[in-house]
Amino acid sequence: MKAAYLGPEATFTDIAVQSIFPNVERIAYKTIPECLEAVKEKKVEMAVVPFENALEGSVHLTVDYLYHEENPPIRGEIIVPIEQHFMVHPAQANDWQEVEKIVSHPHALAQCHKFLHHEFRRATIEQMTSTAAAAKFVSEHPELKWGAIANELAAQQYDLTIVKANVHDYLFNHTRFIALSYEEIDAKASSTLQKSTIMVTLPADRAGALHQVLSAFAWRQINLSKLESRPLKTGLGNYFFMIDINHPIEDVLVQYALKEIEALGCEVKVLGSYSSFLVK
Amino acid sequence: MKAAYLGPEATFTDIAVQSIFPNVERIAYKTIPECLEAVKEKKVEMAVVPFENALEGSVHLTVDYLYHEENPPIRGEIIVPIEQHFMVHPAQANDWQEVEKIVSHPHALAQCHKFLHHEFRRATIEQMTSTAAAAKFVSEHPELKWGAIANELAAQQYDLTIVKANVHDYLFNHTRFIALSYEEIDAKASSTLQKSTIMVTLPADRAGALHQVLSAFAWRQINLSKLESRPLKTGLGNYFFMIDINHPIEDVLVQYALKEIEALGCEVKVLGSYSSFLVK
Repeated sequence: MKAAYLGPEATFTDIAVQSIFPNVERIAYKTIPECLEAVKEKKVEMAVVPFENALEGSVHLTVDYLYHEENPPIRGEIIVPIEQHFMVHPAQANDWQEVEKIVSHPHALAQCHKFLHHEFRRATIEQMTSTAAAAKFVSEHPELKWGAIANELAAQQYDLTIVKANVHDYLFNHTRFIALSYEEIDAKASSTLQKSTIMVTLPADRAGALHQVLSAFAWRQINLSKLESRPLKTGLGNYFFMIDINHPIEDVLVQYALKEIEALGCEVKVLGSYSSFLVK
Repeated sequence: MKAAYLGPEATFTDIAVQSIFPNVERIAYKTIPECLEAVKEKKVEMAVVPFENALEGSVHLTVDYLYHEENPPIRGEIIVPIEQHFMVHPAQANDWQEVEKIVSHPHALAQCHKFLHHEFRRATIEQMTSTAAAAKFVSEHPELKWGAIANELAAQQYDLTIVKANVHDYLFNHTRFIALSYEEIDAKASSTLQKSTIMVTLPADRAGALHQVLSAFAWRQINLSKLESRPLKTGLGNYFFMIDINHPIEDVLVQYALKEIEALGCEVKVLGSYSSFLVK
């Protein structure tokens, strides 16, 4: 089985794939839409893309693409702890405190704001397209006094020296990735939680419609683990809602709730019913 | 009265201020937190910052700052239509179709994706910190074959020639700005709508709490014009909700609803009760 993932090699998405699907052939793509299109065009059988980060919120590109386009179903979610390390080229390892420039993805730089502010007040900060791209650049320029913030896999992949581990400000940061495929997927890990994700568009201009939707779940004691709004792109104040249900979609109570929500005039799109995997 | 706004001169925030508060002294600040801190430190009496865009969604920096910090109340919202134009230095106006590089804010570039894709396939696209900064840069480099995407005020301010007007893909795009102040504000425009904005944090691990909150509004027929989630930054799946109420906060029914929501174990933060202004 081939899996498209948001590359380059050694991104957090790559960690998600390697942890849960060790036997797939991994193929890096540059953007989230390209990963999803690769599955739709049958170039690969699975796509793994980031979906939500505990600090930054949803990955809008993924959410909007899933709402506006037809896609393969979500077959699994993979929750990866985000641990950022400060790394330099081995040639610079003794003088790492004198680095002049630090490169990484904008989110990683934001997540390590306190570390950067306290340890590297005079260094220049520069954004790159991914933590892995930053690590790669540093590895290719041993002559520069540059450092990268990236994960452990990137340090291994690009032969960099981690001179300070765990430089992220928040200890409980996680990112949630989703695996999408038209086929059943075969995960290495075991899961105890089955979830479903739906997107609901409310009828225009009816006050209280969201309350009705939540009522349909509440009186059935169906537990929702997430409710998030996104703009519909049709005008200020128009949203769709992404809802995570902690039950398989085949559950009779869930099926009846969805049918009633549609009967109330809402549009419902089921993104998938899947297992949740946690990477240790 | 002095007003801090997200600068430089001729941003869309500047348009919001000039349209509704023509008599204030405008002072440009570089970031949203600096605008809000200027009011708290009494350097100015009012701050005007972007809050939500119809295509991109909430401005997370503003929302998160209002949630996590103490702030002056919101006294007004200003809704500005977003119209983007393609402009060049007058020295390049005859050869505008040959521009080699196009600069603007990332959101403006995204909003004009179709135009750029069809008309300027071979030109390089470069991000700048604001549409106004892009216009300023082009105005200072008459020798470069560069163009900027920015608003009409920026073209006037920096003496650029609009060679193609209204190059944005979506016609109904608006941005919502908020004016915050410890004092009453004096708007030039008249408003027919009074709104209130609150932020609600649900009690941890109680299924159905959001349903209870919405029920408290629904049975009282209190109309909510917006409900949006944002991560609490305490772990995946923990959110607070921003809710817009189409009633003044003093309304008896609103007051009772808020008291009950607090009695249910929710934290409620009132951001303000204010007039809504529409810029034509």
